[in-house]
Amino acid sequence: MAYNEQYGRYVGMVEETLQALLPEGGAVGPKDGEIPEHLRASMRYSLLAGGKRVRPVLLLAACEMLDGNLEEARVPAAALEMIHTYSLIHDDLPGMDDDDYRRGRPTNHRVYGVGHAILAGDGLLNYAYECLLQNALSYPLNLEGHVKAAAAMAGCAGVRGMIAGQSLDLLSEHMEPDADRLAYIHKHKTADLMTAPLLAAGHIAGADGEKMKALARFGACVGLAFQIDDDLLDLEGDAKLLGKQTGMDAKRGKMTWPSLVGAEAAREKAHALWRQAEEALACFGEKAWFLHAFAVALATREK
Amino acid sequence: MAYNEQYGRYVGMVEETLQALLPEGGAVGPKDGEIPEHLRASMRYSLLAGGKRVRPVLLLAACEMLDGNLEEARVPAAALEMIHTYSLIHDDLPGMDDDDYRRGRPTNHRVYGVGHAILAGDGLLNYAYECLLQNALSYPLNLEGHVKAAAAMAGCAGVRGMIAGQSLDLLSEHMEPDADRLAYIHKHKTADLMTAPLLAAGHIAGADGEKMKALARFGACVGLAFQIDDDLLDLEGDAKLLGKQTGMDAKRGKMTWPSLVGAEAAREKAHALWRQAEEALACFGEKAWFLHAFAVALATREK
Repeated sequence: MAYNEQYGRYVGMVEETLQALLPEGGAVGPKDGEIPEHLRASMRYSLLAGGKRVRPVLLLAACEMLDGNLEEARVPAAALEMIHTYSLIHDDLPGMDDDDYRRGRPTNHRVYGVGHAILAGDGLLNYAYECLLQNALSYPLNLEGHVKAAAAMAGCAGVRGMIAGQSLDLLSEHMEPDADRLAYIHKHKTADLMTAPLLAAGHIAGADGEKMKALARFGACVGLAFQIDDDLLDLEGDAKLLGKQTGMDAKRGKMTWPSLVGAEAAREKAHALWRQAEEALACFGEKAWFLHAFAVALATREK
Repeated sequence: MAYNEQYGRYVGMVEETLQALLPEGGAVGPKDGEIPEHLRASMRYSLLAGGKRVRPVLLLAACEMLDGNLEEARVPAAALEMIHTYSLIHDDLPGMDDDDYRRGRPTNHRVYGVGHAILAGDGLLNYAYECLLQNALSYPLNLEGHVKAAAAMAGCAGVRGMIAGQSLDLLSEHMEPDADRLAYIHKHKTADLMTAPLLAAGHIAGADGEKMKALARFGACVGLAFQIDDDLLDLEGDAKLLGKQTGMDAKRGKMTWPSLVGAEAAREKAHALWRQAEEALACFGEKAWFLHAFAVALATREK
């Protein structure tokens, strides 16, 4: 199957699952057992705003590569996108990055107000775990695999993972650039949530220790390279094409690789990481064709 | 064992477990595998600020009443307190209730800034699930019970539970009082998180369907009565004794039972609910002595 066709198939599964887990509501008043309309709308606004679905596609692709049951991975993939989306909604809030646009549209709090943007984010984070737990219970023969997958995702998204990176990122604004600190921020703020789908897929599909290590390595390299490219896009990219303001990192005094080592050296660092990501796939042989192509596609996205 | 002694024993278990899950950190720089210092401090500030620990005590007491293994319930009890605490931190934020004081101390965002208060809340919510999932994996013989307990907690805390109540509460400020709407808000905003520990304990201890129903009923009645009493305290209580500002509901135009039916009728409603809570315990016989005493103590707290 061609890469684009396969990518479309995975994205289709993700969109379908997200729609099923958070369907449009009727225009009724608050009713027990349903998500209230305003909350539901604010969650859907950010969750169903398109985007590349990088993380859930990684989860589905890794699961299929490992001969896992793709159906079992649907909800975990969707849950991971909920976690990613909540982090964007909260990141955009006043007091955090205070952004007005995201994916070419006004940010959540600009449409629903700060209070509901906080709740929409909390709601997506909590609902991710609610869905993960219910999904785990619906596969009693693979319950342990699913709980391990959810635990790995929680670890990557949590206070030693993504949230740790966000915390340091926030504290480091207007600080002197520092390579150790920046490496920590990128590893946790971005790479951990790219590693999460690979670990989750490994647990769902019952991968062995060696394969888990290779998956983690692939995720970490892709995540770090992705973040460096993102910083380069913010520095040099086209705001219209990206659907968001550029030049914001400099304006906010954010620590980035280009600000630390210059754009050219940052580009080289990203190239090296993309290469390491591909090398990590060696132990999966031919079966890794999609993840190979995926890394290439991400590495060459419009800059 | 006397009630006070037993209560102290449960609270001791909760504090000990919270301290173990979120210990004080050294003054080192950011380090992989550890929670960064500022984030940790902001989480600890609100989580370890004392309080009655009502929800985790309910979980431990219900588990013991049902002859469940109390050790297995430690982490779920602590996780529930994390969820409760995150909801308070986010509720206090500007854009939500915009409160300056909580439990007699400045609110989280007044000490750590809005950005870190958002992250501290996100961190506690995510960490609650991380701890629940790891704890579940450490009891392989009762894995399903623990996953069911975590799923019940996620449901009660989530977008059809507590967050649904918060959403309606926020939308209903300065609206005409409406009994249906108010009942919905109180049920979900407050009572669901009181029901959560009872359902969780039931799943961990393997309670049958009839007992699960009785536990849910007890939790719902206690939660609703507790909220009405809270509204009365805000109206008539002593700010110094309560450690927080009073009269805030009226100032914010919040819908409350006293504002809807008057203080006297609200008091009667609370009494009726406390009575129903006690009746729900009938099927547990003598073993429910602590929950009986607990309801009485809550019903007669200083107003």
